[in-house]
Amino acid sequence: MSHATATAARRLRGGIVGGGRGAFIGSVHRIAAELDGQALLIAGAMSSDPQTARLSAADWFLERAYTSYEDMAAAEAAHERGIDFVIIATPNDLHLPVARAFLAAGIHVICDKPLALNVAEGEELVRLVEAGRTLFALTHAYTGYPAVRQAREMVRTGQLGEIRKVMVEYTQDWLSDAVEARGNKQAAWRTDPKRAGVGGSLGDIGTHAANLLEFVTQLPIEALCADLTSFVAGRRLDDDANILLRLRGGAKGTLVCSQIACGEENRLSLRVYGTKAGLEWHQEDPGVLIHKVAGRPRTQLSAGQAYMSEAAKAATRTPPGHPEGYLEAFANVYRGFMADIRRRDAGQSPAGDYPSVHDGLRGLRFVAQAVASSGAGSVWLPL
Amino acid sequence: MSHATATAARRLRGGIVGGGRGAFIGSVHRIAAELDGQALLIAGAMSSDPQTARLSAADWFLERAYTSYEDMAAAEAAHERGIDFVIIATPNDLHLPVARAFLAAGIHVICDKPLALNVAEGEELVRLVEAGRTLFALTHAYTGYPAVRQAREMVRTGQLGEIRKVMVEYTQDWLSDAVEARGNKQAAWRTDPKRAGVGGSLGDIGTHAANLLEFVTQLPIEALCADLTSFVAGRRLDDDANILLRLRGGAKGTLVCSQIACGEENRLSLRVYGTKAGLEWHQEDPGVLIHKVAGRPRTQLSAGQAYMSEAAKAATRTPPGHPEGYLEAFANVYRGFMADIRRRDAGQSPAGDYPSVHDGLRGLRFVAQAVASSGAGSVWLPL
Amino acid sequence: MSHATATAARRLRGGIVGGGRGAFIGSVHRIAAELDGQALLIAGAMSSDPQTARLSAADWFLERAYTSYEDMAAAEAAHERGIDFVIIATPNDLHLPVARAFLAAGIHVICDKPLALNVAEGEELVRLVEAGRTLFALTHAYTGYPAVRQAREMVRTGQLGEIRKVMVEYTQDWLSDAVEARGNKQAAWRTDPKRAGVGGSLGDIGTHAANLLEFVTQLPIEALCADLTSFVAGRRLDDDANILLRLRGGAKGTLVCSQIACGEENRLSLRVYGTKAGLEWHQEDPGVLIHKVAGRPRTQLSAGQAYMSEAAKAATRTPPGHPEGYLEAFANVYRGFMADIRRRDAGQSPAGDYPSVHDGLRGLRFVAQAVASSGAGSVWLPL
Amino acid sequence: MSHATATAARRLRGGIVGGGRGAFIGSVHRIAAELDGQALLIAGAMSSDPQTARLSAADWFLERAYTSYEDMAAAEAAHERGIDFVIIATPNDLHLPVARAFLAAGIHVICDKPLALNVAEGEELVRLVEAGRTLFALTHAYTGYPAVRQAREMVRTGQLGEIRKVMVEYTQDWLSDAVEARGNKQAAWRTDPKRAGVGGSLGDIGTHAANLLEFVTQLPIEALCADLTSFVAGRRLDDDANILLRLRGGAKGTLVCSQIACGEENRLSLRVYGTKAGLEWHQEDPGVLIHKVAGRPRTQLSAGQAYMSEAAKAATRTPPGHPEGYLEAFANVYRGFMADIRRRDAGQSPAGDYPSVHDGLRGLRFVAQAVASSGAGSVWLPL
Repeated sequence: MSHATATAARRLRGGIVGGGRGAFIGSVHRIAAELDGQALLIAGAMSSDPQTARLSAADWFLERAYTSYEDMAAAEAAHERGIDFVIIATPNDLHLPVARAFLAAGIHVICDKPLALNVAEGEELVRLVEAGRTLFALTHAYTGYPAVRQAREMVRTGQLGEIRKVMVEYTQDWLSDAVEARGNKQAAWRTDPKRAGVGGSLGDIGTHAANLLEFVTQLPIEALCADLTSFVAGRRLDDDANILLRLRGGAKGTLVCSQIACGEENRLSLRVYGTKAGLEWHQEDPGVLIHKVAGRPRTQLSAGQAYMSEAAKAATRTPPGHPEGYLEAFANVYRGFMADIRRRDAGQSPAGDYPSVHDGLRGLRFVAQAVASSGAGSVWLPL
Repeated sequence: MSHATATAARRLRGGIVGGGRGAFIGSVHRIAAELDGQALLIAGAMSSDPQTARLSAADWFLERAYTSYEDMAAAEAAHERGIDFVIIATPNDLHLPVARAFLAAGIHVICDKPLALNVAEGEELVRLVEAGRTLFALTHAYTGYPAVRQAREMVRTGQLGEIRKVMVEYTQDWLSDAVEARGNKQAAWRTDPKRAGVGGSLGDIGTHAANLLEFVTQLPIEALCADLTSFVAGRRLDDDANILLRLRGGAKGTLVCSQIACGEENRLSLRVYGTKAGLEWHQEDPGVLIHKVAGRPRTQLSAGQAYMSEAAKAATRTPPGHPEGYLEAFANVYRGFMADIRRRDAGQSPAGDYPSVHDGLRGLRFVAQAVASSGAGSVWLPL
Repeated sequence: MSHATATAARRLRGGIVGGGRGAFIGSVHRIAAELDGQALLIAGAMSSDPQTARLSAADWFLERAYTSYEDMAAAEAAHERGIDFVIIATPNDLHLPVARAFLAAGIHVICDKPLALNVAEGEELVRLVEAGRTLFALTHAYTGYPAVRQAREMVRTGQLGEIRKVMVEYTQDWLSDAVEARGNKQAAWRTDPKRAGVGGSLGDIGTHAANLLEFVTQLPIEALCADLTSFVAGRRLDDDANILLRLRGGAKGTLVCSQIACGEENRLSLRVYGTKAGLEWHQEDPGVLIHKVAGRPRTQLSAGQAYMSEAAKAATRTPPGHPEGYLEAFANVYRGFMADIRRRDAGQSPAGDYPSVHDGLRGLRFVAQAVASSGAGSVWLPL
Repeated sequence: MSHATATAARRLRGGIVGGGRGAFIGSVHRIAAELDGQALLIAGAMSSDPQTARLSAADWFLERAYTSYEDMAAAEAAHERGIDFVIIATPNDLHLPVARAFLAAGIHVICDKPLALNVAEGEELVRLVEAGRTLFALTHAYTGYPAVRQAREMVRTGQLGEIRKVMVEYTQDWLSDAVEARGNKQAAWRTDPKRAGVGGSLGDIGTHAANLLEFVTQLPIEALCADLTSFVAGRRLDDDANILLRLRGGAKGTLVCSQIACGEENRLSLRVYGTKAGLEWHQEDPGVLIHKVAGRPRTQLSAGQAYMSEAAKAATRTPPGHPEGYLEAFANVYRGFMADIRRRDAGQSPAGDYPSVHDGLRGLRFVAQAVASSGAGSVWLPL
C-alpha cells in the first residue's frame, strides 16, 4: 500500500470495528495499541447504531467514523492516509466477515479471541491469512505478561526438566446469575450460541487458559476429557467446565474454567511441574513468577529485574516494584504485531511474536472437542 | 473395663502400635493425644524389632514396651492400670489385624488413614466396630483445623447457598524420584501394593482430600472419572491423579492429588463455590478462611476471633494471631475421640465428633473406584 | 492562547523537557500523558546534548525537537499548533527555571517531584503559579492509584473514626552501593546536593511517602523527629531515614525511607489506624486495599468493584481482577491535570484533582525539617 | 535435690504459679512444657482464690494444689516426688517474690516476661540467679520459632553482611478501648502500674519486639529515642510507642509497638537489612523466612526443609508444609530449659539455649529508658 511506505518515520494508523460505548474491551484495545507511542487510532466503525458510532468516535477524537465495516475497509484502503491495521472487537460471529473484508483490502488485522464462531470458520480464516501477505494477530493478551514469557523461557531452556503435570484455571463469577436476561449486553452475546459459538465459558475464557498452557509449555494438548455444565437456569451454553488433559510427551493435567465461581474476579492461574522444578503464576498478581525447585528455597522472580530473560525484559516498561498490569500485557501483543507491520513495510520477514491465526484455530478445536467430549459422557477426544 | 471407671478424675492412658524411631507420624500421634492434658501414653508396641521397640519406648518414658501387638492387647486388657485406648500408626496392611485385636480386647482404637488395605478389609472393620461398644476414630487430621470446621458450619447454615462447584487438591513432591529404591522407609511401604493397597498417592493423600471435601460440604461424592499416573519409572502405584467429580445435588468439581509436584510441600487446598458465596482454605496457611461473596469485599476469617462459629472456637486454643497448626488440628481429632471415651465411661452417648470407620470405608471405596475408572480409560463410576 | 480554543474537539498537545534516552521517567510521563487518548506529545527538549535530543524525539515521532527549553517555550507559545502543556522531567535543579519559562509563556506545567531544589525555590514557584492563570501539577503519582483514592474516601467519610496511628514506609535497594561512582546517571544526580537538594532518599522517595500519608489522612504532619544516615561511604546525602511523626489532631506515627534496604524493590506501604478501623495498602500489590475493623473479618477491597467509592471508580479503567499498575496511577494524575486544562479552556473553574504546587512546597519543607532535626540530634521540629 | 537424681529416666515434674481458669497464658505454658513428652505438670498454686485454685488444678489433673506459692515452694522442696521446675505465670509484680521463693527452695524457674516490675527488681533477680545453681529461663517465646532461629543463624554466619537497618513491630488491637474498665482481667493488670510496672504496651509486647531484634541480630540496642502515647482516655500506661533505635555497629532502625492498632491481631514482624541481603519474618505466618539478596530472586525458606540450619531443624517437629505455630515455638523455649535441667542433673554444663535473666533485665531497661526518653520529649538515651 502506498500509505505504508513511510511507516518507519511515523506512528502507525489504526482503526477499530466494534468496541463502542459500553464495550469494555474497546478502550482496552485503544490503550494497548497506543501505549508504546507506535500507533494512533484514527478511524472506526464502532457501532452499527449511527449515533453510538459517532459518539464513540468523538470520545476518541477519531478522524473518520463509519457505521459499516465494509465501507470502512473500502474507504480506508483507498485513503492516502488510510489505516495500517484494524482491530476487531466485535462479538465472535463477526470476526470472520470483518477479517475477510480487511484482509481483502490489504489492511493488517488484529482480532479479539476466540478466533471465530466455529472450527469451519476458523479454518477459512486460516486459509485467507495464509493466502495473502497481510498480517493477522489474535489478542490472547495474557501471553503478553513478562512473567508468562519468563515462564515459557524457563520451560524452553530446560529449567523444569521434563514436564509431568499442569494445572490451569480461569475462574470468574460475573455469570453466576442470569444477567443476560437483565440487560447485560456483554453477557447477552456471550451466552447466545448464534453470536458466541458452541462454547460459553469455554470460548470466552477457556480458550485463554488453553492458549496460556500451550504457550508456556510449548506442549500441545493431545487429548481431553471434559465435563461441562450450564448451572444457570435457561442458559444454553456452558458456564463451567472441568477438563482432564493429556499433553504431548506424557504430561497430564487439569483445565478448569468457570464463570459462576462466586467471588472470583479474573482468576487465571497456571502451574507447571517438571522433573526438576515447578512454576506458578497468577494473573491477579502478575508481576511475580514463583519458581520451586524441590529441596531448595522457593523463589519469586520479579518483573523488571536484571536476572529475567531477554524475552521477559523485552515485555517490561518499568523498573522492579513498579507494577505493570493487564493493559501493558495487552500492549505487548500489539507491540509484537506492530513491529511485524514495520518489518513487512521494511521488506523484512515478520517475527510472529504474538498469537496467530493458527493459535486461534487450536482454540476453536479445543472448544469443539470439549463440547463433544462432555456430550458423549466425558470421553477422551484428541485435539 | 474396671480400669476405666475412674477416668473422670484422671488423664486417660494410651498405647501405640507402630510409630517407632524413624516414623514421623508416631510423635505426631503422641503430641496430639497428650496436647490437651487429657491423656498420657504409657504403653507401646512401637516396632517389631525388639531393640527399636525398647529404645522408642524409652524415648517416650513409656511404662510398658511390647514387641507384639497381640501380646500388648492381651496384657493391657488384663492390667489394672491398662490403657484406655490404642493408637494404630502402622502401614496400612496392619490396620485391620491390629484394630481387630484391640477391639476384641475392649480397648478403644484410633487409627491412621487410610482405614485398611482395601474395601473388603474396610467392610470387615466396619462390622467389627458396629458389633461392639468399643470406640473407633480415624485420624483425618485436617478436619481438625478451626477454619475447616468454620467452613463446614458456613456451608451447613446456608451461607454459601446451593453448592455448585468444588476444587480440592493435595500436592506434594517427596516422591518425585524413586526414593523408595534408596532406603526411604516411608516411601517403601507407601509404594508397595502389599503394604499400601491399590492406591499410592490416592490412598496416602487423595483420601484426605476426598474426606475434607465431603466433611466441609456434607455432600457425598456420587461419581468420579479419573486419570491416574505412575510417573516414576518402576513405581507400581499411582503417584499422581486427576479426577473429575460429581457430588450429590449437582455440584461438579475436580480432585487433584500428586506426590511428584516438584516444589510442593503439603499443599492441601479446598475451594467451594455456591450460589451465594465461595470459600477457600489452604492448609499451609491454616488459620485463615477466605470468604467471597460476589460483589462484596473479600473477607478473611481468622481462627480465634469471637465471630467464628462455636464449632471453630471449640477447636481453638490460642487468641487470634497466635498461629495454631498441624499438631493442634491433629489434637482436635483426639479431643473429640477422648471426650467420647469419657462420655462412654460416664454412661453417656458418644458425640462422634471425629472421622469414623464409615468415613474410612468411603475413602477406600474412593481409591478403588478411582483406580477402576482410570483403568477403564477414565469412565464415570459411582461411589 | 489561540491554539487552545479548540481543545474540546481534539487531543491536547504536550511537550517535554528532559526524559531523553536513558531516563526511565521520560517514557513513564509519555505513556501516562497519552494513556487515555486525551493528549499527544509532539515537542520536546529532551536533552541538552543535540544528538540525544534529536534521537529521543525521533523515538517518539515528535514533530519538533529542541535543545534548549527556553527556545522551546518561546517557539511553542508562538506556534499556531503549539503545545498546551509541558512536562518537566529533569533533575530537581532545573524544575524552577524550566517551570518559570513555560509559565511565563502561558503553557501549563506538569512537573516531576520534588518540586524544586529547596524551600526558597519552592516558595518562588508557588508565587509564580499563584500570580498567573496557568495550571501547575506535581506528579506524586502514587496518589493516582484507585485503592489510595478509596482509602482517602474512607478516612474522609469517617469509616476509620478518629485517626490515631500511621505507619508509612518507602524502601528500595538500588543505592545500596556507590553506583553513583560507577556511571549510573540516575544515581549521580540524585546523590549530588547541587542537583538534588539537601535530601537524598528523603527528596527522592521520602516526599512521596509524606505526600501519600497526608493525601490519605488529610491530616498535615505537624512535627517530626528524624534520624538520617548516609550508609554508603562517600555519599553526601542521606540514603536512609527513620522519622517519628505527629499529625494534626493527635495521631502519631513513623515514616521510614531507605534506598539501601537490600532486596526491596519499590516498597511503598501505608497503614492508618483509627478508633473504628485500620487500612493498609502496599504499592507492590496496588489493587488491594485491606480494611480491618476490630472484631470483624478482615476485608480486601478490590479495584474495579461496584462497591468502591466514586473517587476510586473514576480512577479505574479495567474490570475487577484485571490489574492496573504504576503507569495507570501516573495517568490518573495526568487525567486530572488535563481535565483542568479543558475546564480552563471552556471557561470553567479547575477542579484541582491532582497534587499541587502547595503539596510540592510541603514536601520541600518536610525534607528541610527532617535534615535539620537529624542534624540537631533528633529533635522535634514543626512542619 | 534427691528427687532429681533419676530425671534421666523419667519425665520431669513441673509446677505452676498463676495461670488458673480465665488466664489464657496458663494453658499455653502447660502445653508448651508437656509437648515434647519431657515433663508433666503435677502441682500448682494457680490462684489465690481457693476454689479457683482447686478447680484449675482439677482441670489439669494435678496431684497437688496450693493456694500459696510460699507453701508450694516449701512443700515441693520437701516432697520426695517434688517438682523439678516451676512456671511463673502471674502478673509482673509477683515475678520476683515467686522466683525468690522457688530459687531459695532449689527449684528451677521458668518465668513469663517481662522479668519483673522494674529495673531494680530485675537486678535483684539477676543477683539471685547468679548466686545459685538453680536454672532460670524467661519465656520470650517468639525466639522459639524455627524461622527466627534460622534468621539468627544467617546473620551470625554473615549471610546478610554488615547490618545497616532494622524494622521491628508488634501491633495488636485488643486495648483499643478501655476494656480494663469493663471487667477484662487481662487488661486490668496490664494497664495498672502497680502490677505491670512503668510500661504498658512496652512491657507487654515491646519487650518481645526488642528481644526478638537483639536475638536475631545479636546486636544490642545502644540508644533509643521514644514517643509514647496513651490513646485511651484514663489509661495510665502507654498503649502505643514509636521508637528510633541505634544498634551496636552503626545499624539504625525503628521499633513500633501498639495495642490500639485497630484490626491487628498479633502482628510481630521483623526486618533486617545488611550490606548483602535482607531478611523478613512475620509471626502470623511463622513458618516462612523471606530472604532477599539484591538483584537475585527473592527466596522463601520454609521450616522443616533439609536446607535449614541445624539450629532451625532442632526446633522443628513436623515435615515441610505441616505448619507449626505459637505453641510449638513456646515449647522450644521449654525444650532448651528442660534439656539444661537434665544436663545439670547429669553433672554437665547448661547450654543456655533460651532467654535468660539477663535478657529479662535488658527488657526492663528498654522499658525504663523508653519511658524516660519520651518523658523528656524524645531524647536519645543509652540502653
